[in-house]
Amino acid sequence: MDVNRICNFNAGPAALPEPVLQELQANILSFQTCCMSILEISHRSSDFDAVINDAVARTKRLLGIGEDYHVLFLQGGASLQFAMIPMNFLTEDRKADYINTGTWSTKAIKEAEIQKKNFTVAASSEDRNFAYIPKNFSFTPDATYVHITSNNTIKGTQWAKLPDTGSVPLVADMSSDFMCRPIDMSRFGMIYVGAQKNIGPAGVCMVVVRDDMLKLIPDGLPTMLDYRTHVEKNSMYNTPPCFAIYTVQLVLKWLEETIGGLGEMEKINLKKADTLYSAFDESNFYNGTADRDSRSLMNVTFRLPDEDLEKRFIAEAAQNGLGGLKGHRSVGGCRASIYNATTVESVEKLVSFMKDFEKKNQ
Amino acid sequence: MDVNRICNFNAGPAALPEPVLQELQANILSFQTCCMSILEISHRSSDFDAVINDAVARTKRLLGIGEDYHVLFLQGGASLQFAMIPMNFLTEDRKADYINTGTWSTKAIKEAEIQKKNFTVAASSEDRNFAYIPKNFSFTPDATYVHITSNNTIKGTQWAKLPDTGSVPLVADMSSDFMCRPIDMSRFGMIYVGAQKNIGPAGVCMVVVRDDMLKLIPDGLPTMLDYRTHVEKNSMYNTPPCFAIYTVQLVLKWLEETIGGLGEMEKINLKKADTLYSAFDESNFYNGTADRDSRSLMNVTFRLPDEDLEKRFIAEAAQNGLGGLKGHRSVGGCRASIYNATTVESVEKLVSFMKDFEKKNQ
Repeated sequence: MDVNRICNFNAGPAALPEPVLQELQANILSFQTCCMSILEISHRSSDFDAVINDAVARTKRLLGIGEDYHVLFLQGGASLQFAMIPMNFLTEDRKADYINTGTWSTKAIKEAEIQKKNFTVAASSEDRNFAYIPKNFSFTPDATYVHITSNNTIKGTQWAKLPDTGSVPLVADMSSDFMCRPIDMSRFGMIYVGAQKNIGPAGVCMVVVRDDMLKLIPDGLPTMLDYRTHVEKNSMYNTPPCFAIYTVQLVLKWLEETIGGLGEMEKINLKKADTLYSAFDESNFYNGTADRDSRSLMNVTFRLPDEDLEKRFIAEAAQNGLGGLKGHRSVGGCRASIYNATTVESVEKLVSFMKDFEKKNQ
Repeated sequence: MDVNRICNFNAGPAALPEPVLQELQANILSFQTCCMSILEISHRSSDFDAVINDAVARTKRLLGIGEDYHVLFLQGGASLQFAMIPMNFLTEDRKADYINTGTWSTKAIKEAEIQKKNFTVAASSEDRNFAYIPKNFSFTPDATYVHITSNNTIKGTQWAKLPDTGSVPLVADMSSDFMCRPIDMSRFGMIYVGAQKNIGPAGVCMVVVRDDMLKLIPDGLPTMLDYRTHVEKNSMYNTPPCFAIYTVQLVLKWLEETIGGLGEMEKINLKKADTLYSAFDESNFYNGTADRDSRSLMNVTFRLPDEDLEKRFIAEAAQNGLGGLKGHRSVGGCRASIYNATTVESVEKLVSFMKDFEKKNQ
């Protein structure tokens, strides 16, 4: 089908691989051989079991994890996880460390605070508007977990290397860089991912939780807010967001079979990021907002000489088929989100447009 | 497009109107004039604002409610609402009444119990396996709310007439009969609806809450679990389940513009239910499980003379293009869910098959 589609640099919901969209489209009226839509099949059917089980198996293969990790598909986004994490893991006798690297870390911290939990902000980059990832700080040695935001969508920074927390497990919000490259999962007690940036559509939150973390959970939590509920029922204690899970399954299949896994994905992502950051580094017109050693592979934030030029840049880019380049409303400027599904060709088109725009407006 | 589709009697996720599926399909690769998929557009875009605002406006028109009610699109299904309702409305000095009419009421009650809230089960039909809706019982006069399940998907019963609770507002789980007929909304402090039965796909829960209920909410709740968060942000405190909301919008448009509103919908639903229940009443082979005065317009539960016949009935029906007729795993037997999107023609086909099957197996 010949459809006019733009290069989509949205921060989330964001671009999905076109073959995934085509497969979704083909299954909207009748899913595989079910003679009913993917939106109409029962979550208790063997057809849907095959979808969710395949999504779990692919996640485990891609991350290189085994039986000691559980893969869950929940609702409420990362924002509900901000509350569930301290609720499940921080009983009165326990404490945690949080690293504050931006808007979403700040929100995660706020939810621990609302519940009056015992935690320390072990490091923060708030002093320079979160333009960098903190280095050289110390952790609480007997913390139950250290919480990080692996990639900061709004500020355009990313942990290049995981912090050394000794034997204390990391709990990470990976919403905006999940599966952008291989990671050492043994470092993590839990990761959670609002799917709508790098792995699927809005409406599902992936959680990968290590079995030993479940032993920390106190009894008496509301059923839906207790991770054990979802582990025991394979994410089907109640009706799951079936269509969103199906879309994630197709994205995982694309990652495994078309891209060739996270190592190959990283190569492509490095190429895209290099192409775009080089354009700044060769120019005095475009200025990246993140420190070089903290730059994100996924969200490239930059400013032009003034706000008027930024407005025109975004408008003219849109006219040239390049969408979603406005920075987050809280920080302004420009941002190109170049998640897994954004192609090298899209990034090259953007860089070519940037060069033209610079020439015309210097 | 000519697609082979069966008559779908699933209990949820369930049948959607075919024109809705066709419109979804047309917008999967490029939404309207956006040149990106409905799955890829930003929830902060004017395009998505138009979707959610239209869904809210149509809900208000269809229900005949004004500014004093808020329409929300949340995640976590009715199951998370079971916990949020007592958390938000039952502070220490308040109490509530619950009426237990089946599996889902029981789950709602359990969540109030987990939180050690002050409540009374004012009536229950558990003595006869929930085959009827209780009558002649008394309420706690100064309760904060009375909780009911308006339609019991598993047991096939429905409140034909709302209980008289005086000035105490009803809080109702309407997951399986929302918008099946006109209702007197002035009786309700809040209704909540897992969309996947009568109003959309899995992955979104609609909440309609009266403004005065918000004044009951204590400070200090986790942000995502406080209804005021979602009221203040028009359901966009965090990324909402955009595709599910879009699907609901299209179903609401179909209800308003194609069907002609809830009065017309009720006529069609009455016709379908009459057609199906008459088939029982004329037969000694099929036996409805719900008391006559408590029969559901939406979920028609019935038994055949023995379990072996039931198995064959379900299998042969499927071979004849009639799907989803198995009763809930907790009760067995058969169930035909005839929600808004199930056509009169589908019900007639089912009745015709039932008559044939009876003749062959008497």
